[in-house]
Amino acid sequence: VPVELTLTALPGIPLVQAGDDLPELIIASLERIPLRLVDGDVVVLAQKIVSKAEGRRVDLNTVVPGSEALNLAEETGKDARLLHVILGESAGVVRSRPGLVIVEHKLGFICANAGVDHSNVSGHPDGDWVLLLPEDPDASASRMRSALENHFHARLGVLVIDSHGRAWRNGTVGVAIGVAGFPAVLDLRGEPDLYGDALRVTQVGAADELAAAASIVMGQAGEGRPAVLARGWPYSLGEGSLKDILRPEEMDLFR
Amino acid sequence: VPVELTLTALPGIPLVQAGDDLPELIIASLERIPLRLVDGDVVVLAQKIVSKAEGRRVDLNTVVPGSEALNLAEETGKDARLLHVILGESAGVVRSRPGLVIVEHKLGFICANAGVDHSNVSGHPDGDWVLLLPEDPDASASRMRSALENHFHARLGVLVIDSHGRAWRNGTVGVAIGVAGFPAVLDLRGEPDLYGDALRVTQVGAADELAAAASIVMGQAGEGRPAVLARGWPYSLGEGSLKDILRPEEMDLFR
Repeated sequence: VPVELTLTALPGIPLVQAGDDLPELIIASLERIPLRLVDGDVVVLAQKIVSKAEGRRVDLNTVVPGSEALNLAEETGKDARLLHVILGESAGVVRSRPGLVIVEHKLGFICANAGVDHSNVSGHPDGDWVLLLPEDPDASASRMRSALENHFHARLGVLVIDSHGRAWRNGTVGVAIGVAGFPAVLDLRGEPDLYGDALRVTQVGAADELAAAASIVMGQAGEGRPAVLARGWPYSLGEGSLKDILRPEEMDLFR
Repeated sequence: VPVELTLTALPGIPLVQAGDDLPELIIASLERIPLRLVDGDVVVLAQKIVSKAEGRRVDLNTVVPGSEALNLAEETGKDARLLHVILGESAGVVRSRPGLVIVEHKLGFICANAGVDHSNVSGHPDGDWVLLLPEDPDASASRMRSALENHFHARLGVLVIDSHGRAWRNGTVGVAIGVAGFPAVLDLRGEPDLYGDALRVTQVGAADELAAAASIVMGQAGEGRPAVLARGWPYSLGEGSLKDILRPEEMDLFR
């Protein structure tokens, strides 16, 4: 049997509202296929549905920008209220220029706009809404994992992912921002290669590779396919956390 | 029918030697499953088998390091002969410190050691061999594409991939270094989201996301599973090239 990984977009997940029970929506979608989760399956969630279920939206009409946001608005040409929200989600600004703000998010990763998202949040005539990232995506992933493991009596992994731009290369890619029951970074140090030599590549960004894979089937049209089942992950599940992925600033040559 | 992407490691690919006909090896492996390629399939190749088939190995015992390599060896503690080879593959050194050399490869991307690889090349008692990247990975991908399209009478994509470290995040991920018949970067600018708003994410690193996905099933043990079939890519194939992925230096805030 060849090694095979299958990424299946979970069908029929409705537009998510604050307070919705996400595990129930995932289970209902799986029953629609129908498909039972089994040991080793990994469920990958777009951050957007997690954030929406957790009520992480802010109406820009209620935001009064502070002086840092006003200065940054002058430099970048972006909405000062949006920048105020972004700065509130950030540990610091890493780079800025007209049209672009790259920050260290409070959660520790580097990304544009602190992951604050204007698209797919509107459609509400009663405000000018933006969506923040989940407050603790590892915890969001853990809650989903517990609920699904209890329902399916299987050992599962869960990722919460977003799309990030990168240094050096064009185009965004899916990356993990929350991890539960899954090795965020796979440590192969000491594993022999085909000739018995030590491997060159020793730490694999496992959660990020799976996030990128799931991102392909999610597409970018927001909530259309916001959850993906990954079946056939060829390693053990193990444990992991977003923290494993974050390179400490003192070890990072590129910020 | 749910959107589904399947990544299948092609079985039974032997250790590749210089001069081997890679398309023949891929076709033989597909016949072993058995599986016929169809319109929309993408074949993903580890750079290592492409480089080996193209004879891109160098015996370090034949290398006389120049002064730049000797200076870099002093700084980094790495083998001066290896550094001489790395510098020959590079447009310039981006960062260096003990144990680490990050360069702009002549092909335009930023990576450690110019992709020059010591593991899985030895097992040859007659030298101390390292493997360079393919000379023109887009062309390597194009040759494979032509051969497979002719054989299967189908419209196919081909990627040549490597594992790269990244700024800010731990762990390597699969990235595309050669592209044929595939949109390296997917431009969704102007596409509406679920509410009719313009999308936040507009340029998707499609080839890199698929490279990361294929990298999962390849594993890191070198040539064990060096080729992967991706079936179910949910967009049109289109055309693309490594150049589409490379962010021009003047647009790059992180080098």
